[in-house]
Amino acid sequence: MSKKWLSSMLTIGSVALSSYYYGAYREKQKLLGNGRLDSKQQLELLHKHISKPAFPLFATVSAAELAVMPEVNLTATPLRISQIMKYGFPSLDNVRSYSDFVLSYDRRNRVPNWVFEHLTPLSVAKNEEVDRAKCDFKADESIHPYFRSQNSDYFRSGFDRGHMAAAGNHRLHQKHCEDTFFLTNMAPQVGQGFNRDAWNRLEMYVRKLTKIYPNIYVCTGPLYLPHREDDGKNYIKYQVIGTNNVAVPTHFYKVVVAESTDGQLDMEAYIMPNQVISDDTPLQIFQVPPESIERAAGLLFFDKVNKKQLVKINGKKV
Amino acid sequence: MSKKWLSSMLTIGSVALSSYYYGAYREKQKLLGNGRLDSKQQLELLHKHISKPAFPLFATVSAAELAVMPEVNLTATPLRISQIMKYGFPSLDNVRSYSDFVLSYDRRNRVPNWVFEHLTPLSVAKNEEVDRAKCDFKADESIHPYFRSQNSDYFRSGFDRGHMAAAGNHRLHQKHCEDTFFLTNMAPQVGQGFNRDAWNRLEMYVRKLTKIYPNIYVCTGPLYLPHREDDGKNYIKYQVIGTNNVAVPTHFYKVVVAESTDGQLDMEAYIMPNQVISDDTPLQIFQVPPESIERAAGLLFFDKVNKKQLVKINGKKV
Repeated sequence: MSKKWLSSMLTIGSVALSSYYYGAYREKQKLLGNGRLDSKQQLELLHKHISKPAFPLFATVSAAELAVMPEVNLTATPLRISQIMKYGFPSLDNVRSYSDFVLSYDRRNRVPNWVFEHLTPLSVAKNEEVDRAKCDFKADESIHPYFRSQNSDYFRSGFDRGHMAAAGNHRLHQKHCEDTFFLTNMAPQVGQGFNRDAWNRLEMYVRKLTKIYPNIYVCTGPLYLPHREDDGKNYIKYQVIGTNNVAVPTHFYKVVVAESTDGQLDMEAYIMPNQVISDDTPLQIFQVPPESIERAAGLLFFDKVNKKQLVKINGKKV
Repeated sequence: MSKKWLSSMLTIGSVALSSYYYGAYREKQKLLGNGRLDSKQQLELLHKHISKPAFPLFATVSAAELAVMPEVNLTATPLRISQIMKYGFPSLDNVRSYSDFVLSYDRRNRVPNWVFEHLTPLSVAKNEEVDRAKCDFKADESIHPYFRSQNSDYFRSGFDRGHMAAAGNHRLHQKHCEDTFFLTNMAPQVGQGFNRDAWNRLEMYVRKLTKIYPNIYVCTGPLYLPHREDDGKNYIKYQVIGTNNVAVPTHFYKVVVAESTDGQLDMEAYIMPNQVISDDTPLQIFQVPPESIERAAGLLFFDKVNKKQLVKINGKKV
C-alpha cells in the first residue's frame, strides 16, 4: 500500500465504485423484477449515460462507419472490445450489498472473497428487539444455482457455517442480524476450538473497539495459503465439501481500521489458521503486516485511506 | 445456462458491460497518464453521468439530509453502502483489454480467470509482417506489484509460460501478437507433451475453424479441479511457483462458439489435464458439457447467446 499507489487507487477506486454502483443498481432492479426494460430501452439508457466524446465506448457503430474504420487496431478500441465480447463477459465483479454489510462472492470457491462491515457503538449494542435465535442459515437465491452454497453442503461435513460478518455486530434491527445468516456470508470453519473459541474471541475484541472508537471498519475473509512439501515444492491444498464443492479455507483474515473522533486511524490485521487454537493463545500473536494478507488474498485493503491519517498499525506508530 | 437465465443475463450482461467499459476507460486514462483529473473534476464527472432519481447512488448527502435520514436501513441504502465502504473496495472486477483480446486477471493466483478472443480468417492468416520470434514474454506493469507475475516466477520452475490467447490467433499486426506475450495472458503449463503438443493441437484445431466459420469466439482459462483422497474427502491441490506463488492449474478449459454467416452457432467445450498427453489421443475425448466448466470455474460462458441461434453443442444437435 505505497503512497503512490494509494493516490492512484483513490481516483481509480472512486471511478470503479461508480461503475459498480451502476451495475449493481441495474442488476438489483432486474433481480427484484422491477422496471424491466426491453433491449431498446436498455440501449437508450446506456447511451444516455455515456456521452461522446468522453465516453464513446457505447456509441453505436453503423455499417457505414464500420466500413471506413481501420481494420487493424493497435490499442483496445471500443469497437474491437465489443466484437470480442459480443456474447457476454464470463464474469465481472461479484459484489453484493446486504442491509448492513457488503461482500464480494467467490463463485469458484462458493465462499466470500471479502466481507466489509462498519461498526458503531449503536450497531453492536445489545437490543431486546433482536433475537439471534430466530435467524436461520439460508442460501442466497440471488446467486446463480451453479455457484450457490447450500445448507446441505455443510451438513455432516464436520465444519461450522462460520460467519464472516459476525451476527453480534448487527443488532440495530432483526433484519440486519438475519442478513448475516445468508450462506454467502459463511465459510466452513472448524467449530470447537476455532469458530466458537479463538475466532469468536477476535470478533468480540473487534466489537469492543467501539467502546474506544466511534467508527470501526472491518474486512474479513478466507485465505488459501501455500505450504512446502517434502519434494521441495510449494502447494496450495484445501478440502471442498458438499455437492457444490464449498472450499474450506486454510486460514482466515481480519483487517480492522478504527477511526477516532479526530479522524485518526489505527489499523490492525490478523491471520488465524482454520484449526483448533488453545484458549490461552493471545490474539496478538496472530497479528501480521496488512500487506501479507493483501498479497495472499489478491486484495487491497483500505486503499482510500489517506496515509496522513494512519497513526498506528498493529499498535505500532507508523 | 437455462433459457430463463440466458434471457436475464442478456440484459444484465449489457448493463454490466457498460459499467465495465466506463471503469475500464477511466482506468486506462489513468494508467496512460492522459487527462488526469483532480478529485473535484472526478466528482463532477461522476455526477454528470449519474442522474437522479434513476441513479441516486452517488448523490451527495449533505449533513442536513443525513440528519433527517432514518437510522435503521432494512435494505442496502446507497448511504449505508457508502458508509460501510468509506475506505475503498478490496476488489472489483479485474478485466483488462489488450489490442486484440480481453481477459480477467485472478489476482490471488496470478494467472487469468478467463481470456476472450474473436478469431476471423483474417486475424489468423499468415502475415509476413508479423514475427513471433520478435515477441518477448513480459510482466504487465498495469497489475499491482503484489499480484504481478514475473518471468522469474517461471524460470527453472519446469513449466512453460503457456499462452491462453494463442499467439498464432493474432496475426493482423505485430502489436497484436506481442500483446499475447504479457504474463497476464499466461499460466504455467507442462511443456513437452502438453503446451507444445496436445494443447497446441487444440489451438490449431480452433484456428482452422475459421476456414468454415467467418467468426470464432474462444474463451480459455485455468481450472483447479478437486480429487478424492484416501480419507474419503475431496481436496483441491495445486502447485505454486516463484516468489509470487503463481498457481499451476490442474486443468485448462476452452469454450468455442463458431458463428456461421446465417448467424447459426455451434459450441464446443474442452477440458484438458495439465499433464503429458499422448500424441495419438483424439481431441474429441476432451469434450465436456459447457456447464461442467461453468460450475468448476465459477463462470458463465456466452450468456448473451440467443438459445434459438444455438444449433450444436460438441457436434450434437441441441
